[in-house]
Amino acid sequence: MNNRKLSLLMDYYELTMANGYFKDKKHNQIAVFDVFFRSVPDQGGYAVFAGLEQVIEYIQNLTFDEEELEFLRSKKIFDEKFLEYLKHFKFSCDVYAMKEGTPVFPHEPLIIVKGPIIECQLIETMILLTINHQSLIATKAARIVYAAQGRSVLEFGARRAHGYDASIYGARAAYISGVIGSSNTYVDFKYQIPALGTMAHSYVQSYETEYDAFKAYAQTYPNNTVLLVDTYNTLHQGVPNAIKIHKEILEPMGCSLKGIRLDSGDLTYLSKEVRNMLDEAGLKDTKITVSNSLDEYLIKELLHQGAKIDAFGVGERLVTARSEAVFGGVFKLAAIEVDGKLVDKIKISDNIQKTTVPGFKQVYRFYDGKCMAIADVITLHDEVIDETKPYLLFDPNFPWKSKLIENFNVKSLLVPIFKNGKCVYDLPSLEQIRAYAKEEHDRLWQEVLRLERPHLYYVDLSKKLWDIKQDLIQKYKK
Amino acid sequence: MNNRKLSLLMDYYELTMANGYFKDKKHNQIAVFDVFFRSVPDQGGYAVFAGLEQVIEYIQNLTFDEEELEFLRSKKIFDEKFLEYLKHFKFSCDVYAMKEGTPVFPHEPLIIVKGPIIECQLIETMILLTINHQSLIATKAARIVYAAQGRSVLEFGARRAHGYDASIYGARAAYISGVIGSSNTYVDFKYQIPALGTMAHSYVQSYETEYDAFKAYAQTYPNNTVLLVDTYNTLHQGVPNAIKIHKEILEPMGCSLKGIRLDSGDLTYLSKEVRNMLDEAGLKDTKITVSNSLDEYLIKELLHQGAKIDAFGVGERLVTARSEAVFGGVFKLAAIEVDGKLVDKIKISDNIQKTTVPGFKQVYRFYDGKCMAIADVITLHDEVIDETKPYLLFDPNFPWKSKLIENFNVKSLLVPIFKNGKCVYDLPSLEQIRAYAKEEHDRLWQEVLRLERPHLYYVDLSKKLWDIKQDLIQKYKK
Repeated sequence: MNNRKLSLLMDYYELTMANGYFKDKKHNQIAVFDVFFRSVPDQGGYAVFAGLEQVIEYIQNLTFDEEELEFLRSKKIFDEKFLEYLKHFKFSCDVYAMKEGTPVFPHEPLIIVKGPIIECQLIETMILLTINHQSLIATKAARIVYAAQGRSVLEFGARRAHGYDASIYGARAAYISGVIGSSNTYVDFKYQIPALGTMAHSYVQSYETEYDAFKAYAQTYPNNTVLLVDTYNTLHQGVPNAIKIHKEILEPMGCSLKGIRLDSGDLTYLSKEVRNMLDEAGLKDTKITVSNSLDEYLIKELLHQGAKIDAFGVGERLVTARSEAVFGGVFKLAAIEVDGKLVDKIKISDNIQKTTVPGFKQVYRFYDGKCMAIADVITLHDEVIDETKPYLLFDPNFPWKSKLIENFNVKSLLVPIFKNGKCVYDLPSLEQIRAYAKEEHDRLWQEVLRLERPHLYYVDLSKKLWDIKQDLIQKYKK
Repeated sequence: MNNRKLSLLMDYYELTMANGYFKDKKHNQIAVFDVFFRSVPDQGGYAVFAGLEQVIEYIQNLTFDEEELEFLRSKKIFDEKFLEYLKHFKFSCDVYAMKEGTPVFPHEPLIIVKGPIIECQLIETMILLTINHQSLIATKAARIVYAAQGRSVLEFGARRAHGYDASIYGARAAYISGVIGSSNTYVDFKYQIPALGTMAHSYVQSYETEYDAFKAYAQTYPNNTVLLVDTYNTLHQGVPNAIKIHKEILEPMGCSLKGIRLDSGDLTYLSKEVRNMLDEAGLKDTKITVSNSLDEYLIKELLHQGAKIDAFGVGERLVTARSEAVFGGVFKLAAIEVDGKLVDKIKISDNIQKTTVPGFKQVYRFYDGKCMAIADVITLHDEVIDETKPYLLFDPNFPWKSKLIENFNVKSLLVPIFKNGKCVYDLPSLEQIRAYAKEEHDRLWQEVLRLERPHLYYVDLSKKLWDIKQDLIQKYKK
């Protein structure tokens, strides 16, 4: 988080509530909050969880300095003792979370915070902001990488991102989901995400002729000559000039034309024509990169039409997740301690999908004998699943839809991050996160990965948890 | 920018091009670049220009330290002399820009950078990133404020923003366009944008009963009691409890219930019922605030249905500009000095709208006798418009569509920001920017402000500039 002081980046109501709890002397009441989301953007089959590292950094650095306290004091609604509390704020909660890169599904807790209600409330906004942003972009990037069917995807969105962090952490999230690099130099400096890029139209225009521009570039970067060929006319000028550069400049230096980039026009038609021209000139290894408002839908269609493309530069539609720019993670109360005992809490809604899952929980992922994911089951936090016995999966909304499974493995997805306010999690490197994301992605069935109308992955409740939920619903109805 | 070191937040190609220019000894060649955009998001009639203050901050702080240079050196493609140049980097360009808050239109330059091509290129990414983000949100906020027809709009999007800056600068941009405050406490601390908010569902749930929660809140904030009434059942429980709180707690203290908030259900139906209930209880001054995935389209329809709403809390759909999350500002070469003389540059496209306007320019806004804006005219930079003589406006794409106007005033919209690298602009306060935005907004015809299928405001070229453009097109065709 670059040593920024963002402690006041929180919804004002976190502070009014916190002050209220404090005044009511209930601020140390233990509560359990869940972070979860209700639907996958773009009606996709799964989302990719990202942003945990920044949540941890934020929590570890959460303090309130004199200037911040003075500002709050000036509001004239906060109790002096509450401000004193903030001055000595020390995080003491337990936090559990999915590992970054985990494929995740609606309704299951991604993060659980358990501790004094005042602390839970104070960190709500930043947890949601961080997770919602990075999970949104990681999810979108996964779709785009999937659509590219093994071809490279380059993140090119810096200039259209929603501010500096959106570019930086957006590139980070996209890298987790498999893009091979970013145009943003800062993320290479900071996160070792390979920086990519060669030239803009202005570079070509700034020279007397296109040939002069290409020549200057090739002489400067003979080992990495990727030429933007559409400034004037791709087929009649750009590509012939690029081939000439290869023959007249690069070949004599023992180098060869690494690639060309198309940034306009019909990419299916042009890429096929360009491929033919390059092949005829003996440049079979010269790669074709394309860009221009790409997303998974257009990439899929270009490839369906047989476009000859080796790499996709994806900008605004990735970094803003333009087709659905919101990841709707929420932070809901799941339990609260009364007289030393956790009491499960539920928020009922007429909309059955909006009724929350009560209690302090865990999530298990079930894998079949081939290590493919079958279902996630939300359980009570201390439930243990015996892999040696058959297990009955059932749909929590339609419990008669059930299936007895055998020969499975389970993995608990929520791991301890903070224990009594102390970080107990060994942060993986970004490369490790990226590798883990790929590994877990590859354990999802093609049916779940499909971009359009995917199979709905099962997220079930354990029998114990289901019973608790039904009891609370019955109690509420009375 | 909070003292962050973001000098490497730039597309990598800016650096590869800059190094190329340097190596070719053409880095000091004077160039003119324009920032402009091609279409208004959501097919609106105008956009609101925002983000200039952050662009200025960025440019003023642009330096490259040893760590950054060492990183670039490690790439093994940058000339040591180029790195030395960066080490001593000193901005020397002239910059002209629209004032923040100006209503702006497609194809007109919003910012012009004139100076050594290497400097123009190095600042491209951050200019676009900053302007594209804040103009996107300012434009969206203006639409939402317009739809609310004088009712208050509150920016509530922190938790769904694309990162920290998106929340901070998004709130700033929204405030420029007339929202009355933000949920993000940090922007009150930093920019004196009023922080707003009261309680979440979790607050209500954390007490034994809804009544207990309301009571605790009212006792803590008797002068600002706004109660969230939809945790259990709005009409049968929430509102009756709120009325009871007024009578039992607030009235005896000499206070009254300031407001209630609805965050779910059918907002037209509920707001009407709630209004009746409050009025019958004598609470005619108690305000109704609503939230829940609002945007200009839903607000317009709620009001069309006669919903009784006093204020709108708008979150994710404002802070992400969800319906169209991209503002497509670009940075294009308009002229370059050759042998001491500026040579106009054009980028031709088959798509007539994508062909650029060449040359070093100025933009004039024409106002009629009642101070309403008639048209913008893009001219050469040093053209002067004589207000005492009739002026012929004509459509640059269909020049036979013309109109001779008299009795007009003009204002040049591009003002000097940097002169020889030195900031010469007196930064207005945020309140001044907001007031200016409102003033200029009120000079647009209703026809231009309309949300759907607005009248297309005229952005014309002066005769001189039009001739230059036609000449370049003819030259290109040969």
